Amino acid sequence: AAAKQQYPSQPPSPNRSGEIMKFGFPDYGQIQMHDNYVISYDRRMRNAKWVFECLTRDEVKYNDAIDRTNCQFEVDQSVHPFFRSTNEDYRGSGYDRGHLAAAGNHRRSDGVMQQTFLLSNVSPQVGDGFNRGIWNNLEKYVRGLTKVYTRVYVCTGPLYLPHWESNRRQYVKYEVIGTNSVAVPTHFFKVVLGETKNQSYDLRAFVVPNKATSDDTPLKNFLVPIDVIERAAGILLFERLPKSLLRSVNAPL
Amino acid sequence: AAAKQQYPSQPPSPNRSGEIMKFGFPDYGQIQMHDNYVISYDRRMRNAKWVFECLTRDEVKYNDAIDRTNCQFEVDQSVHPFFRSTNEDYRGSGYDRGHLAAAGNHRRSDGVMQQTFLLSNVSPQVGDGFNRGIWNNLEKYVRGLTKVYTRVYVCTGPLYLPHWESNRRQYVKYEVIGTNSVAVPTHFFKVVLGETKNQSYDLRAFVVPNKATSDDTPLKNFLVPIDVIERAAGILLFERLPKSLLRSVNAPL
Ligand SMILES: [Mg+2]
Ligand SMILES: [Mg+2]
Repeated sequence: AAAKQQYPSQPPSPNRSGEIMKFGFPDYGQIQMHDNYVISYDRRMRNAKWVFECLTRDEVKYNDAIDRTNCQFEVDQSVHPFFRSTNEDYRGSGYDRGHLAAAGNHRRSDGVMQQTFLLSNVSPQVGDGFNRGIWNNLEKYVRGLTKVYTRVYVCTGPLYLPHWESNRRQYVKYEVIGTNSVAVPTHFFKVVLGETKNQSYDLRAFVVPNKATSDDTPLKNFLVPIDVIERAAGILLFERLPKSLLRSVNAPL
Repeated sequence: AAAKQQYPSQPPSPNRSGEIMKFGFPDYGQIQMHDNYVISYDRRMRNAKWVFECLTRDEVKYNDAIDRTNCQFEVDQSVHPFFRSTNEDYRGSGYDRGHLAAAGNHRRSDGVMQQTFLLSNVSPQVGDGFNRGIWNNLEKYVRGLTKVYTRVYVCTGPLYLPHWESNRRQYVKYEVIGTNSVAVPTHFFKVVLGETKNQSYDLRAFVVPNKATSDDTPLKNFLVPIDVIERAAGILLFERLPKSLLRSVNAPL
């Protein structure tokens, strides 16, 4: 039967894809390299898909000369106007402009800190009890890891997780804010890979709901198997890390 | 103030991005070239993001030798197991396995038709009144355009559109089915660019809700400005088409 034969049964013209795509690709991976972090932007959600950092003690060290009150949230002009989020989208929404690559991780210069204030690196976050609470605790914990590890790789991003309803079906539901319809993630993930001085690695993976959570909730309560994040976010993490170098996963904090 | 200075204020190390991304990128544009269509796969949604075809009268011509009953829906093995949709995901869901690149557009060989049965080219669609109704009418209309135009470029994909709720906020809500959490789009789009023999172009853009709609609803009721689709899908369409060659947009069908 046709279904069993190996296709192509008949060769296409040599440049068929070029013909089909003659007038341009609708999109391609939206990856931007900044000075101190790398971001993949999700144009449909008006949120990052993931943000990658590599922290060291020096990068995150408190520095009198770098003051975040000098920084301002700004539209990312490199994002096409159809897909940007703006300060106006957040106004009156009730949500904070929450950093994904945390400002406090980028203290090498005013320039690198200001880059974290690009709105492409920002998601709508519940303020009290999340951005200014448990999520901030997690960010501080991650910075603290630079005292233990020579390098700390951090991948952060939004999630839009399904829930069961009484009809025994699952749904994803999230708010969108502003005239640009910026998605409000239901959860955020942060995956942290600590590199020891003899090049072994400890991995920790967190998912935190985008809602007020008691400030004194232990961070270990948010540990999840890394594939939960990979499946939900549509990404694969640290694929090039040799498994033999992985010393621990979700070890006690 | 720091916010006004041009960043970077201090140059990063020459290969900073390489350092940050040392263990691999979480994802990149998931674009696949098939023999007769091109697809961008959305790993998070377990649906295509968009599918591009270029139809001619010959490609879509009815051909006794090509029989869709020989074709079978099959898992796309080129998609990582975390992000695939499978036939089991659809079983008992109540949704059809709906083609994006329509099988009937690919009659050059069994092989090219079978490629449209890859589940990466398939989305959960309401069967009665949509996949087997109004959406099928639209597909036939598009095939019919090959009698009028020398080439017909077609971009098709899912949408997940927001709605207003009584709290005066907007939400996106969609079902997910199966163990792989395959998203059920709220709407589908189809954008059609017809090329005349003297290289001018007519553009038509459709959005149809993924629900039963009376079979005799005129297709013109589903015409929308193309930027509505671009904004909602996070894509830009036909960017490389010179505007001066565009003869009409959403002209009478
Ligand atoms: Mg914050
Ligand atoms: Mg169909």
